[in-house]
Amino acid sequence: MKKLSELTYGIVGLGLMGGSIAKSIRQNILCTSESKGKILASTRNAAALELAKKEHVLDDFDTLDTVDELLRQCDFVFVCFYPHMTVDFLAAHKNSFKKDSIVTDINGVKAEIFDRITEIESGNFDFIPGHPMAGGEKEGYSASNAAFFKNHNYIIMPLKSNKADDIEQFKRLITEMGFTQIVETDGRVHDHKIAFTSQLCHVIASALVNSAEDAKVTQFGGGSFEDLTRIAMINAPLWTELFLSNKAELLGHIENFERSLDVLKNLIKSDDAEGTKNYLEEVRVKRIEMARKDMKVEK
Amino acid sequence: MKKLSELTYGIVGLGLMGGSIAKSIRQNILCTSESKGKILASTRNAAALELAKKEHVLDDFDTLDTVDELLRQCDFVFVCFYPHMTVDFLAAHKNSFKKDSIVTDINGVKAEIFDRITEIESGNFDFIPGHPMAGGEKEGYSASNAAFFKNHNYIIMPLKSNKADDIEQFKRLITEMGFTQIVETDGRVHDHKIAFTSQLCHVIASALVNSAEDAKVTQFGGGSFEDLTRIAMINAPLWTELFLSNKAELLGHIENFERSLDVLKNLIKSDDAEGTKNYLEEVRVKRIEMARKDMKVEK
Repeated sequence: MKKLSELTYGIVGLGLMGGSIAKSIRQNILCTSESKGKILASTRNAAALELAKKEHVLDDFDTLDTVDELLRQCDFVFVCFYPHMTVDFLAAHKNSFKKDSIVTDINGVKAEIFDRITEIESGNFDFIPGHPMAGGEKEGYSASNAAFFKNHNYIIMPLKSNKADDIEQFKRLITEMGFTQIVETDGRVHDHKIAFTSQLCHVIASALVNSAEDAKVTQFGGGSFEDLTRIAMINAPLWTELFLSNKAELLGHIENFERSLDVLKNLIKSDDAEGTKNYLEEVRVKRIEMARKDMKVEK
Repeated sequence: MKKLSELTYGIVGLGLMGGSIAKSIRQNILCTSESKGKILASTRNAAALELAKKEHVLDDFDTLDTVDELLRQCDFVFVCFYPHMTVDFLAAHKNSFKKDSIVTDINGVKAEIFDRITEIESGNFDFIPGHPMAGGEKEGYSASNAAFFKNHNYIIMPLKSNKADDIEQFKRLITEMGFTQIVETDGRVHDHKIAFTSQLCHVIASALVNSAEDAKVTQFGGGSFEDLTRIAMINAPLWTELFLSNKAELLGHIENFERSLDVLKNLIKSDDAEGTKNYLEEVRVKRIEMARKDMKVEK
């Protein structure tokens, strides 16, 4: 297996995630003067390229027009586009990837990837679907950060066609980047779980802000509202795509949440102090269990 | 107006809030060897007194049996009980407070205070209802912290009977303690606004945890779920009291939230990309406006 510090990495799309991946590789893997590896990037965003150049994050870069030349040089490619663009890009450029290179995506919903997997799998590279679980209310290359992934989860969804060595290499890379837990699953489980931990939370935060009488209400805030709604400073086009492309799973979780909310609402409405207290006690125990680090290991 | 550093402060109830108030006064107001002021505390929790003694937070302290002796010495008293105990305590001990002392509470719901205000107002002390807007998932004196209030909001609800000098003195004190915005309002507005910024958020966080399939789902988390539900590690008896004592306001906000959630759910259900994007764009603008510091001034 090749040394990570000797590989050429390609980042296609240089936004918050692409930028953070590039910076993280630069800082954690290609950090000494002996590192022979390189980072190349391709993006349509000229301002991001300009800034990345100034910051010495990239060794070479170009606009998307010449992306095929870039792909031919890379041992490891991260495609960091909006979800719908990803499969089209992979399918359109599948003959440009370097032979035996490892290619991954960062899509937050995997249904389309797996529905169209045959269009990608036929290339002579090893495509391993992945999802780095990090985000935030900021967007764009200028908000990207090498430390973005520290102690975060990475979900990978290996295909039957993937080489064991490539999966191992991928895991080594993301561990070096700072991810502390790698969860292996399939696309269907991913989309079901993510609809809960990520998309439902963005729906709730957005609905909560929408329901505020006015923006001045935060002068009565003590931190709870602020914590619940920080993610409502939302990238609207991206999250519209994510919500609609995972609609069935998301609607199921919204309806479960509405039922849970209804139970608590009715306990309060009927002045049921004992019932309310029991509901909250159970929630407290469950949430403390969720925070246990030793529980955070996929069985 | 007397110097804050020469006053005797009384803390009745030494949990998370009482402890943090005591520590904050010690650190910010009675911090030099020349400070002639004192902090006295009274609580039924022997372990908290023991720890506070060790930490040199208090000058004197006792159990609640002899609280009347303590109250007679104090220029400024914070009653830091659970809501229902507060008015009973104030009414029962109203003849024990030092003449012209300033007394305040920290209740998260004010309806009961204002319903029974005549029972308290007849004492020869100046009672100013207040609500320090700080909290968290931790509880008890051992979690208290002098820095707890830094940059937080404090809501005060002065009575017509309050002396202007006493309100001024109260504001000077809480400003020294680190609160950066003091909002003046009445009990009705307080309970309406707090039901949204605080109680509704706790209801939503609790219902979200309740609706989780299992505690292991957090291994698919990227931070959103964790941020939304930290407050669900909830003090169940306290929040049961708060929810039920502000039931009408809280139910109104829950129903508004449910309507907002329904609108977004239906946009997603009907695959309305344009409508979803517009909803999220509006939310984004509103939430960014809420975070503006220069907006955070009560008109």
